[in-house]
Amino acid sequence: MQNFDYMTPTRLVFGENAIEKLPEVMAKIGRRVLLTYGGGSIKKMGLYDRVKELLADFEITELPGIQPNPKYDPSVLEGVRLCKENNIDVILAVGGGSVLDCSKAIAGSAKYDGDPWDIITAKVPTLSALPIVDILTLSATGSEYDSCGVISRTETNDKLAYFSPLVYPVCSFLDPRYTFSVSKKQTAAGCADAMNHIMEQYFCEDATLLNDGFCEAGLKSLMANAKACLANPEDYRARAEMMFACTLGCNGIYALGNSPSGWPCHAIEHALSAYYDITHGEGLAIITPRWMRHILSERTLPRFVKYGINVFGIDASLPAQEIAEKAIDATYAFFEEIGIPMHLREVGIGEERIDEMAHHIAVNEGLDRAYVPLLEPDIAAILRASL
Amino acid sequence: MQNFDYMTPTRLVFGENAIEKLPEVMAKIGRRVLLTYGGGSIKKMGLYDRVKELLADFEITELPGIQPNPKYDPSVLEGVRLCKENNIDVILAVGGGSVLDCSKAIAGSAKYDGDPWDIITAKVPTLSALPIVDILTLSATGSEYDSCGVISRTETNDKLAYFSPLVYPVCSFLDPRYTFSVSKKQTAAGCADAMNHIMEQYFCEDATLLNDGFCEAGLKSLMANAKACLANPEDYRARAEMMFACTLGCNGIYALGNSPSGWPCHAIEHALSAYYDITHGEGLAIITPRWMRHILSERTLPRFVKYGINVFGIDASLPAQEIAEKAIDATYAFFEEIGIPMHLREVGIGEERIDEMAHHIAVNEGLDRAYVPLLEPDIAAILRASL
Repeated sequence: MQNFDYMTPTRLVFGENAIEKLPEVMAKIGRRVLLTYGGGSIKKMGLYDRVKELLADFEITELPGIQPNPKYDPSVLEGVRLCKENNIDVILAVGGGSVLDCSKAIAGSAKYDGDPWDIITAKVPTLSALPIVDILTLSATGSEYDSCGVISRTETNDKLAYFSPLVYPVCSFLDPRYTFSVSKKQTAAGCADAMNHIMEQYFCEDATLLNDGFCEAGLKSLMANAKACLANPEDYRARAEMMFACTLGCNGIYALGNSPSGWPCHAIEHALSAYYDITHGEGLAIITPRWMRHILSERTLPRFVKYGINVFGIDASLPAQEIAEKAIDATYAFFEEIGIPMHLREVGIGEERIDEMAHHIAVNEGLDRAYVPLLEPDIAAILRASL
Repeated sequence: MQNFDYMTPTRLVFGENAIEKLPEVMAKIGRRVLLTYGGGSIKKMGLYDRVKELLADFEITELPGIQPNPKYDPSVLEGVRLCKENNIDVILAVGGGSVLDCSKAIAGSAKYDGDPWDIITAKVPTLSALPIVDILTLSATGSEYDSCGVISRTETNDKLAYFSPLVYPVCSFLDPRYTFSVSKKQTAAGCADAMNHIMEQYFCEDATLLNDGFCEAGLKSLMANAKACLANPEDYRARAEMMFACTLGCNGIYALGNSPSGWPCHAIEHALSAYYDITHGEGLAIITPRWMRHILSERTLPRFVKYGINVFGIDASLPAQEIAEKAIDATYAFFEEIGIPMHLREVGIGEERIDEMAHHIAVNEGLDRAYVPLLEPDIAAILRASL
């Protein structure tokens, strides 16, 4: 068991009508609010109007239009400018992980006078940040309960993770009903994203018995509840269970004390969505079983056997190699069953830039130190197998 | 799935040499320290000297001699007096759950001018508290990661739980090596305490798939690792896994969104240790299987079946009633196997005050609103079955 130093100071207000506590929470922080959101789904579902009603006494500046794979330019730059011009006290992010991630980059850069890219790349440390409150409308990234935001810079094909303990949300409001209108495509992609968060922590050299149980429970809960959400998008119970299993995805609690894995699937997928702007969860679902097959070896076999038996209920009396292969097949089959396109070509990615992406990943992501080290040819092989 | 409002702001510094960060953590809080501890085991293992070295630049006032089932008089009263007289900035609790619980009652009362009992009984709300830092030396109560302290008042046979969000420890230092010298008796009792914390959350009307997996993982981890600790008290890995599984016991994370259970075994045991000052974990281990047998019914059967299959690996093809009974037997057998005396008479409790205790519990603990409501005759029956 590894040493760790852990704290998640975020308050979670979970359940029906959670946002009724929004004014009370906001009033303790400040009156001048930057309201960040995405393409307008929050208006369709009436959430935008409800937030404006609840915050009638606050001064609200808006940053709409934050895209999936949120962009440094214009969203982060525009947000920082708005914070400075309006002397913003607090950012209220209403949306999914992209809105939250973008808001974290804004929060961390708003009190810095130089180029925000210095902060996002950690060239300059984050010494202070605006507080963030959020209302979540998509179950997927876990950004509502972690200190990380992933930002894309289009012109350099960079998609990178910004970290600072100062950007944990102060409070996350989680009302599962705000995810009722999430499309089947995004429901499935969110499930795949959250499952991969858990797998990135489960597949490692040194895992505890407790963490293995936590991770296996998370995976089983996500699979069962995603299927229920797809069958009935307004199944409160399923949306609620899925929302919370996703929320814990990246804050560490699934695997405190496990050895680090290097998060290889995320590292590879970040290049895919940086180069092609695909849906993150879909990219992960495509990569995951190919990565698994690539790293399956005598050394990793016991992890795959445990995964197969405990997550998919594969017969423990079968030969180990067979259990592991069935587990990888079952992973693929589950993603396919929930409707995810399982080939890169189906999401518009061909052979053309595979080597360029593999090189970019090998140079930037440090996967030579991953659970199973991946060098440029390994990464290229995983990408080609995913075509 | 139930609504919840959750936050645990405590920082956990876990692992070998964790306390090297102590001076840095303390320096941010204050210089005048109340050092609280128990019967002197921290001196035997050299921890007391190491803490004094690390805090050479701090002004330290000491409150030694805090007993198991920590007492309002003298410990809490004396601690509050010392805090006021010495203008204490921060309490450093070094020990197990009793030292921590006592420190929480002191912290919550130190800034109040009236009788501390007003604060502990919530007659007066806790409006401010001294910050608490702790170094844990016993895996059991989870007090290092929750906002509760259990205090006994001998003359009235009261043992009650004090709660305030202001008494979450600021930082808990968890070095498993400090539990190497814990006796077999206390190791087993600590395991039983932590297992019961999980059971109190698992046995409820409405549990999520995720939480069931978390709770089952916690129980299996505690059982496996307690046995390993008893076989080899200096097994770092086993002590570490046990320590962390205990730490999560009462902070809610095992079961966020489950319906409340009323914590019936704790409610009953608190009377046992208030009247007889027995070891809390032993009392719980004795009560638990008798409580289980008392509440087993058509309504609760499915929970016991799930518990039996997933925690003890009982053959799922057996009749449900048989699985449930085997699960209760296995619970009893496990506690017996780790050396816990499984009858009240073995810990010095006879028939004499059963009815008095049952009445006290029925009047004070609200078990008529528990998962399975328990009235005075139910409580008396559980106690008699435990003799």
